[in-house]
Amino acid sequence: MFGVTILGNNSALPAHGRHPTSQIITIADEEILMIDCGEGTQMRIRDFRVKTSKLNHIFISHLHGDHYFGAIGIITSMALVGRTQSLHLYAPAPLHALILTQLKIADSTLPFELIFHPLTKEELLADEEKFSVSCFKVFHRIECYGFIINEKHRPRKIMPAKAEEYNIPLTFYKKLQAGEDYSAPDGSVIKNQMVTIEGKKNRSYAFCADTYYTEAYVSAIKDVDLIYHEATYLNDLELQAKQRFHSTAGQAAKIALKAGAKALLLGHFSSKYKDLSAFESEAKEIFPNTEVTQEGVTYIVP
Amino acid sequence: MFGVTILGNNSALPAHGRHPTSQIITIADEEILMIDCGEGTQMRIRDFRVKTSKLNHIFISHLHGDHYFGAIGIITSMALVGRTQSLHLYAPAPLHALILTQLKIADSTLPFELIFHPLTKEELLADEEKFSVSCFKVFHRIECYGFIINEKHRPRKIMPAKAEEYNIPLTFYKKLQAGEDYSAPDGSVIKNQMVTIEGKKNRSYAFCADTYYTEAYVSAIKDVDLIYHEATYLNDLELQAKQRFHSTAGQAAKIALKAGAKALLLGHFSSKYKDLSAFESEAKEIFPNTEVTQEGVTYIVP
Repeated sequence: MFGVTILGNNSALPAHGRHPTSQIITIADEEILMIDCGEGTQMRIRDFRVKTSKLNHIFISHLHGDHYFGAIGIITSMALVGRTQSLHLYAPAPLHALILTQLKIADSTLPFELIFHPLTKEELLADEEKFSVSCFKVFHRIECYGFIINEKHRPRKIMPAKAEEYNIPLTFYKKLQAGEDYSAPDGSVIKNQMVTIEGKKNRSYAFCADTYYTEAYVSAIKDVDLIYHEATYLNDLELQAKQRFHSTAGQAAKIALKAGAKALLLGHFSSKYKDLSAFESEAKEIFPNTEVTQEGVTYIVP
Repeated sequence: MFGVTILGNNSALPAHGRHPTSQIITIADEEILMIDCGEGTQMRIRDFRVKTSKLNHIFISHLHGDHYFGAIGIITSMALVGRTQSLHLYAPAPLHALILTQLKIADSTLPFELIFHPLTKEELLADEEKFSVSCFKVFHRIECYGFIINEKHRPRKIMPAKAEEYNIPLTFYKKLQAGEDYSAPDGSVIKNQMVTIEGKKNRSYAFCADTYYTEAYVSAIKDVDLIYHEATYLNDLELQAKQRFHSTAGQAAKIALKAGAKALLLGHFSSKYKDLSAFESEAKEIFPNTEVTQEGVTYIVP
């Protein structure tokens, strides 16, 4: 499964049952990633039964409170339940000093290694076996990054008749899916391509954080499958959106269209809107495959 | 009304629907005070429809995260809704630098004055028209304070027959209750004591924060009407309680008994306990007028 679970999709203030930004990315069923961590995220992941034992990477787009105030709470709660495995935290540099200060004034230490990666430029941040994550610059009032998560190495598809023909044992099938050749007992080698074909294409997801509308970052997210884009306002407040370094639903849709995405998720709604139906209609006029996100829902990358 | 509304009564981790420490003190119906502010408190006050426009004083007992991680969120949310009136924050000194850093890295300023009062010793912290607040030292792993809130100047009780006898106009009754003498049109002065008697006694409330059991602070809370005391564990874990600088339900009851309080509220329960009925029975054996607090409930000072 490669999906995005929305923990919070409101901007700035919590309102209308919506919470500050946070989302969980489930990838390859083994590990989960978190993007942004607004206040109360540790309660949200508890409510949604997200296992923090599988959470090893947290990415923070920028240091406005509605995107990071919950980070210290998650980290110290992991410590309280006795976590020992390392945790990678990717964020603008000042967050590291802040967390170290908070631990110091509490006279606390962590029972696990917190590996802090300061965001300073567009680069590959994590390159794991089954996924990679890179960041790109977006345009907000303070330094702000979007993230692209790429699936890696989806299994090759076995041709069963061919595999049987070469007497490849079932116990070797997982290795075939991973692309390995088979060495038969008689010393002959069955090349992987003779018994498998390419599996499903690796997919990608882009989180575009807080930004005003500009095409400057379209190249960075070109051809991703799924985009989450902020839509703080509707088009009638385009000027206000620009002044506050935010986007409208219509602008988010334009970005998805220009990037050639398959689907668009909208979030980061202003507290001034209780009903979000206009966000959907405004975006769909430009980019039909748009969803107004709901908290607690998991959206599968198409 | 002089009452304590529990927003969070769990220790360390949020669990079993219980939240980290925070409570609202309603006093004289005009102002509310907050004691401690764990993560998510701004969502809790929204849920319980607490008006932050009436909240002008926040007291933080100590700098463990479950008592203060929500402070920056409340403060920045007050800014977002355009607060202009000053806010007094009383806490150990490092919180001030932390908040200033968080504002700086967000490139934000507050549209109101944040008046920070560092807690450094036992002293009178606030002396307002209708209440006063002082702090006292309790004994935790890091510097930690309890708070005593005293009602002031409850109205004198008018003797209606006497007031009529002296032809005191109804419009002056509020001043009579406040203790003023009445100057009649003929120049004569009606002394207040001639037409009023003492009103109800001023009450007091003590929040005892996180502490291990010791009688060292009993003198500070002697004869208060209502005590909120932490009861992280039950008596069978007395040793663990001591080692972790916490108290048991039985110890909290002993403190209430020795202080001569009228009633005791228990809180700050360890996440290891889902059912809290044993806390009630253990404490009531020693101090019968004990309540195991529930979040969302307001307890009136007797």
